Amino acid sequence: MAVARIAVVAGDGIGPEVVAQARKVLDTVLPGIEATEYDLGAARYHRTGEVLPDSVLTELAGHDAILLGAVGDPTVPPGVLERGLLLKLRFEFDQYVNLRPSRLWPGTSGPLASVKPNEIDLVVVREGTEGLYAGAGGVLHRDTPAEVATEESLNTRYGVERVIRDAFARAGRRERRKVTLVHKTNVLTHAGSLWARAFATVAAEHPDIETEYQHVDAAAMFLVTQPQRYDVVVTDNLFGDILTDIAAAITGGIGLAASGSINPERAYPSMFEPVHGSAPDIAGQGVADPAAAVLSTALLLDHLGHPDAARRVTEAVAAELAARTPGTPRRTADVGDRLAAHVAS
Amino acid sequence: MAVARIAVVAGDGIGPEVVAQARKVLDTVLPGIEATEYDLGAARYHRTGEVLPDSVLTELAGHDAILLGAVGDPTVPPGVLERGLLLKLRFEFDQYVNLRPSRLWPGTSGPLASVKPNEIDLVVVREGTEGLYAGAGGVLHRDTPAEVATEESLNTRYGVERVIRDAFARAGRRERRKVTLVHKTNVLTHAGSLWARAFATVAAEHPDIETEYQHVDAAAMFLVTQPQRYDVVVTDNLFGDILTDIAAAITGGIGLAASGSINPERAYPSMFEPVHGSAPDIAGQGVADPAAAVLSTALLLDHLGHPDAARRVTEAVAAELAARTPGTPRRTADVGDRLAAHVAS
Ligand SMILES: CC(C)[C@H](C(=O)O)[C@@H](O)C(=O)O
Ligand SMILES: CC(C)[C@H](C(=O)O)[C@@H](O)C(=O)O
Repeated sequence: MAVARIAVVAGDGIGPEVVAQARKVLDTVLPGIEATEYDLGAARYHRTGEVLPDSVLTELAGHDAILLGAVGDPTVPPGVLERGLLLKLRFEFDQYVNLRPSRLWPGTSGPLASVKPNEIDLVVVREGTEGLYAGAGGVLHRDTPAEVATEESLNTRYGVERVIRDAFARAGRRERRKVTLVHKTNVLTHAGSLWARAFATVAAEHPDIETEYQHVDAAAMFLVTQPQRYDVVVTDNLFGDILTDIAAAITGGIGLAASGSINPERAYPSMFEPVHGSAPDIAGQGVADPAAAVLSTALLLDHLGHPDAARRVTEAVAAELAARTPGTPRRTADVGDRLAAHVAS
Repeated sequence: MAVARIAVVAGDGIGPEVVAQARKVLDTVLPGIEATEYDLGAARYHRTGEVLPDSVLTELAGHDAILLGAVGDPTVPPGVLERGLLLKLRFEFDQYVNLRPSRLWPGTSGPLASVKPNEIDLVVVREGTEGLYAGAGGVLHRDTPAEVATEESLNTRYGVERVIRDAFARAGRRERRKVTLVHKTNVLTHAGSLWARAFATVAAEHPDIETEYQHVDAAAMFLVTQPQRYDVVVTDNLFGDILTDIAAAITGGIGLAASGSINPERAYPSMFEPVHGSAPDIAGQGVADPAAAVLSTALLLDHLGHPDAARRVTEAVAAELAARTPGTPRRTADVGDRLAAHVAS
């Protein structure tokens, strides 16, 4: 029997290149994975007009996890792949924990002058199935002076409390044991109140975990001026979208950022993917950095109950980054080979 | 007759200290201003329970502009002064342009290693009267497992188009003549579509102005990695709240950031204020930096049709910052004296 059944969506642009390296590493660190490739993304959309056929959704549901490279290219109308594929999977598979760790790795440098490697080590636990991502809203009187457009943020106690619980659980397994709630309670008073009360409830059950609250504007600022202060950050879907891109920026860019869209109960497959896009400008040249894709497999391994394998993958990436000679280009496949060799040793 | 009638809300904490310097500079650069003090903020709220009596609102309406120091302190429940005073004024006085310039001044250094003084010179034109700030939403089944909370973003063609027009007008008066629209059209498809179409309409009327579009998460990232690319950024109320704090952070913190809540038609008074808060921790010590308050008076002067006076104030602040000896503390009143002397010369 397979040790795990993985659906692989290599996707567009550099997606297939980085996923190939991720699979090299994955197969080395955990032999016996059964992987099935699914052809989804911009290329398929252009060829067939399909984004995510129901039959594929059903097949994906039969897997333990999904590994995704990157989907999209500039010729696909905005929203088509986002709503039709990425968000559809998050919602259909109840991936309510959107997990985005950020570390300033040894051997790398971010844009912040005063922050040294290892000083940033935070994880954002972003809610993945509610808020402004619910798709509620509409347009009236389109293209007239009377036009009005709405977007509604939907927040349930059920949905908010479960993601906060996940954040506290993760904080309990980390060294600093601190959770920061980020919201905008002074303006979004309805949703903010729900988030704040749910947070207080869960915090009361975890007296051993330090807590703080920040408005999203302040958090965006502190991520730039004092990122060292964060350990686990829990926040809503849209705030998390923005904050995780800042967190990626201060740790050397989305080229190194991994993410997981997770259903912690494993009732549905979780999805793991680099935060970067399909980067059509460098696709096919063999120069894309596979680090984020490989780090995504570490999240996948951890989720599937292989924390040791996850740690070895993470250590391999850390070693690779630390050993880089700045200015010397590295080829995608070579990096993958070195990472695979590292986890094998 | 007075050259201008200004309402002054010094407010709490360091508010009165920095406003005193701002007025010194203002009275020097434009003699003949008639100023009336209004006691609003946390102190008044604690004393009387009142936030903004209708009678005061009516009196404020009779002024050409409002100069505000800072309101609030940690003992006021969240939302009370924000909704009851700041947002109330923005909405009542139809201050639909929330203007936030960010410059990395000579003599200062921000947190970004590779960005040199003068390389950041951008202004965010944030919508001020719509979006998620409308206050639409509610809570059902509070504190039960069935609780749901909503927040609704309301966007009108009227409100969106006018702020975009303002952004293009400002870009037309700047050197680089570039406007970046920031939204999240791939997820907030209803409001995003309205913003994108209104932007396209106005852009078509300004073929001489360069335009670009970015998703808010990408913009948050690029503000950290390539802030030089921005000239005028136009965006919705909540995105603007977040982006302007990042813009402040990368230019040395909110201590230097000025803002205006502007009704361009001058149908109502506009309000000018430093972005920083009341900073209770350093209040009363005479060490607060009045730069942001003074820069806010430059925006005020510009709005009231005194661009030369505005320029002299801005130059005075630039000279003061450039002449600082890093590490040498400067007293609030001394800075104010030097700035006043500079604009007088
Ligand atoms: C592509 C888009 C729908 C998505 C999001 O907004 O969640 C992306 O920005 C992300 O962060 O995964
Ligand atoms: C105090 C708060 C209501 C306000 C806002 O969210 O607009 C502040 O953050 C700002 O940016 O002026």
